[in-house]
Order: sequence, then C-alpha cells, then structure tokens
Amino acid sequence: MAAITIFGKGNMGSAIGDVFTQGGNQVSFIDSNDPVENLGDIVVLAVPFNAALSIAKANKAALAGKVVVDITNPLNFETWDELVVPADSSAAAEIAAILPDSKVVKAFNTTFAATLQSRKVSDDVQTTVMAAGDDAAAKDQLAAALTDSGVAFVDAGSLKRARELESFGFLQMTLAANEKIGWTGGFGVLK
Amino acid sequence: MAAITIFGKGNMGSAIGDVFTQGGNQVSFIDSNDPVENLGDIVVLAVPFNAALSIAKANKAALAGKVVVDITNPLNFETWDELVVPADSSAAAEIAAILPDSKVVKAFNTTFAATLQSRKVSDDVQTTVMAAGDDAAAKDQLAAALTDSGVAFVDAGSLKRARELESFGFLQMTLAANEKIGWTGGFGVLK
Repeated sequence: MAAITIFGKGNMGSAIGDVFTQGGNQVSFIDSNDPVENLGDIVVLAVPFNAALSIAKANKAALAGKVVVDITNPLNFETWDELVVPADSSAAAEIAAILPDSKVVKAFNTTFAATLQSRKVSDDVQTTVMAAGDDAAAKDQLAAALTDSGVAFVDAGSLKRARELESFGFLQMTLAANEKIGWTGGFGVLK
Repeated sequence: MAAITIFGKGNMGSAIGDVFTQGGNQVSFIDSNDPVENLGDIVVLAVPFNAALSIAKANKAALAGKVVVDITNPLNFETWDELVVPADSSAAAEIAAILPDSKVVKAFNTTFAATLQSRKVSDDVQTTVMAAGDDAAAKDQLAAALTDSGVAFVDAGSLKRARELESFGFLQMTLAANEKIGWTGGFGVLK
C-alpha cells in the first residue's frame, strides 16, 4: 500500500487514480493551484507537459525524495508532427533535470485513458503500463502499487528509454487522431 | 499482384517473402553481392542498416522509380542503448537522402520475424505492418501487396514518422532482449 498523490483530475488523472485505488493504495488528488502539502510517496503529474514543468519548478523541495511519475506526451499540438522536447531528450529527462533530488519515472504515457479505465486495450488484451527510470527501487514501488490494480507492469529500462516511450505514445496518438485505431485501442504489450 | 525483390534471406527476409507470397505476389530474393537486375516494383532491403546504406549507394539508378522498403532497426548493437542515426533523423530518412528518385517506405521494422511468419503477435493478435512514407501511392502499393497476406496494414503517416517507428522497434527489441516479452510477442496493434 502506497500513498499516492495525483496532480490533475482529467481523464488520465482519474483513470490512474482508479487503477491505484483498485491496487489498494491511498489516493488523493491535488489541483495545480492547491497548496502542496502531505504529498504521498508517489506523486503523479497527470497534467500537460508545460504544467508538469511548472509544478516541478515550483515544488522542488516538496518533491525531493518522492517517486515523481511523468505521464506526458509532449506533442506539438498545433502540428501533431513533432514533439516539443529536443530530439535527443524527453519530457521525463527535462523534468528530471529540474528535480535532481526526486526519483523521476516515466509511465502511463503509452496507455490511453480509456484503456487504463477498462484495463483492456481493445476487447481482449490486458492494459500494460510501461515504465522507464534510473532508480530501480522507484520502479519497484510503482510496480508494487500496481500489483492488484488490473493492469500489468513492464520495466522498460533506464530513464533514457523515456525517449522511446514518448515516441511510442506520440505514434499511438497520431494513429488514433487519424482514425487508424480507436482511443479504446492502441498498442498492446504481448508476452 | 506485384513483383517484389528482397535483398537478404535471413529470418526477416524469409518471413517477409512468405507474407508477400501468400499475398499472391511474385517474390524473388537477391544477395547483396549478386548482380542487380530485373528488380521488382517493390524492393525490400531486408539487411542490416549498414548493408542497406551500401546497397542504396551502389544501386541508385536501378532503384530509381522503385518502392524501396527499409525494414531496419539501426541499433548500436554494442550498447543496445541508442540508435546509430542522428536523434532527429531515422534510418529511412538517411536511405531516402541517398535515393531521391526512389519512393522510400519504412515498414516491417516493428514486427519480429516470428510474428510475421506466424501472422500473430503472441497467440491471439493478428500481426500488423506499420508503414511510413511520403509517397501515398507507394504505401498503397505496399498495402495492396499485403491484402491477402495474413498480416494487417496500417499507414503510419509521412516518412518523418519513421523516427517513431524506429523508436518503437528499438524499444520492442530491448524488451525482448531483457526477457520482458518473447520474440514471438511484442507490441500488437489493436483497433
């Protein structure tokens, strides 16, 4: 059982909260403008990339020592043709650079909100959360919190792999936006 | 029915040949060292990235006007921690730069050989070939050649999306190498 604080209660924040609640964790939500206090051990930034950067910058001390989960897909939403982070970096790496005393993990950016909520990609495949980070214990904490949540967990490697996870999320979003897949489908992870 | 020439007859070349044969196409294989003649309308470079570059450089005239399919995942196989192409580019873009008179399509790099051969990712999900390229007619030709092949086809957008397809392939390979998934599994595309 972990105490988990989720910034943002949009579709993604709500679905992530539902997953963690089923996992037996204590989940609380916080708005970007709320006073930041009593943060859980795991803090999920379920907000757009620019808001995640702002939260990180404004709360370095409060986030020190925490597992900070970045779920963003930093698309250029005007063009839908590129990410706004440097090509050799990632949103997670940018956030980690702001929070050197936090344990930043990239996760939940490869699953649409609907597939988290239903625990299924399309009709038959269990939803899998892929996570990348440099702190093995932080990924273990996240995996433990998801054990009974209804979604599977895969350790996708070091934080450097966040770049690939963000490419994966970007590609999946462009396919859905172009109606090649539905927002209840996408990429399933099959053993 | 298309005439298809495949450079290379390793696991990937063989599986791609099997898929196109089922699709009712005329498939022939060619070794990198064979004389290049009578190329089909679709030419698949089913060889490692460096070999694909060499073939492209040596056969610009013969490949002019052809649909040239790049299937490579340009990993640094010493580190398994990066791609050898520039971060803001892709293997497909590098090959396209060498072959301005060819219609370069990125495809088959997101499917392991075993999933092409079986037409299934793991046990239940049909294998999908994702393709990226700037020439819509070339992608249509490829899609048509795969119609009855047993694998599904998804147009993943412009050649710029090859970068994301290569990140996707890279990530999938690292997960298999780390035994998070099997080489008969991987990422399925679910509608």
